[in-house]
Amino acid sequence: MASSSAQLDQPHLCFQSWIAQQQADLEELLQALTIYKGDDTHLNLIVEKNIQHFQEYTEKRSILARENATSFFAPSWCTSLENSFLWIAGCRPSLAIRLVYSLCGSELEAQLNEFLQGVRKGNLGELSARQLSLVNDLQCRTIREEEKLSTQMASLQEDIADQPLLTKANEYGLIGASIEHVDTTLDEHALALAGILEEADKLRLSTLKELINILTPLQAADLLVAAKKLHLSIHEWGKRRDRHHGRP
Amino acid sequence: MASSSAQLDQPHLCFQSWIAQQQADLEELLQALTIYKGDDTHLNLIVEKNIQHFQEYTEKRSILARENATSFFAPSWCTSLENSFLWIAGCRPSLAIRLVYSLCGSELEAQLNEFLQGVRKGNLGELSARQLSLVNDLQCRTIREEEKLSTQMASLQEDIADQPLLTKANEYGLIGASIEHVDTTLDEHALALAGILEEADKLRLSTLKELINILTPLQAADLLVAAKKLHLSIHEWGKRRDRHHGRP
Repeated sequence: MASSSAQLDQPHLCFQSWIAQQQADLEELLQALTIYKGDDTHLNLIVEKNIQHFQEYTEKRSILARENATSFFAPSWCTSLENSFLWIAGCRPSLAIRLVYSLCGSELEAQLNEFLQGVRKGNLGELSARQLSLVNDLQCRTIREEEKLSTQMASLQEDIADQPLLTKANEYGLIGASIEHVDTTLDEHALALAGILEEADKLRLSTLKELINILTPLQAADLLVAAKKLHLSIHEWGKRRDRHHGRP
Repeated sequence: MASSSAQLDQPHLCFQSWIAQQQADLEELLQALTIYKGDDTHLNLIVEKNIQHFQEYTEKRSILARENATSFFAPSWCTSLENSFLWIAGCRPSLAIRLVYSLCGSELEAQLNEFLQGVRKGNLGELSARQLSLVNDLQCRTIREEEKLSTQMASLQEDIADQPLLTKANEYGLIGASIEHVDTTLDEHALALAGILEEADKLRLSTLKELINILTPLQAADLLVAAKKLHLSIHEWGKRRDRHHGRP
């Protein structure tokens, strides 16, 4: 039985409405692509709106994470499958770029068929040399930024083995051991985590924005369709697999 | 209300018994340290037994992970606080080394007091120059190994944006879209995750073993006491904070 919304906490609701938003955006994108006849203005608007929705989602997350950041790092509202792809509370920013390369490859074959049938129309299988060079440059920069954030995350995780938590942990099992100061320190840790989550979300957003700028509106729409279908599919596959393994 | 064991799945039970094992081991270590009068044989046996228990835990995890690896990467049986410290389904292997450095520093002060009172007894505040150099060397090697595994993990996570899942995801929303082949691919992904988890556990274990070999039995017992108190404390603090945030 599905949980009623009233039982869900804010981060869970935020994620649920993001899934619903992506479903709505996917439908709109697919419709725009169906009626596309070479006029980029309408497609551009839809693509911009999609990015705007992603930005709004990250802004909501950022506010919620300041309340309780730790829950975003292994969210109970995501499936185990989704969680196994987590990097700082979301997907790797470079995943969007990897997706472009994959689509570029997989569309080459489809494109050949279309070309032979005379309906070739400038999709991701047709990235120009200049576009490929820009994507490649973006990938290098994104991976460097990911590495910086990974290092910050590692350093934050190592702080747990440091003062003042070590002194408080030393009181483990002692009768009357106070938990004073522990919460202050853990609140500071959670705030630092929220900060890293915000930086990671900024990188996810800026990478996607920059990628969209490199692509034509048609290619950008193709990418967004593929990204949304992939996320929504993984969410569905994950739910089915969790049920199979007896996870609620 | 605590869940009854009958309701819990195998990985959850495995973790629960590991927590109970650590509590028992901690008590035994503390008792051995209380009666310690300079004879290392007994202390050595207890330390060895502790390492053996950790090894047995990783072996059990490894078998369970082959059944359902994804659940170990954001375990529902751990608290949000614990999960925010996860690196490949456990703590960072280098955390044990960081703990030695922290204890080394924090015990220096305590040791000065003991020294003045004539009860100085060779704890972690008294690492020799040779020991420090060996620990430093181990830290460099461990971090390099961590980086290798992080890269493998990133590469595995990126495979999601590749064939054959991309083709299956493209069928999202289509009536009659088959889920054939998806499970085979996701099973392969889960097995690869289980493999990385096993490698990470091996690194956690070998780092701890090597560290124990560098230390005297008394120092090793000190380290194990601190590591267990820290883990058990974080588990307790995490439970309290999850209850506070309304997480069951």
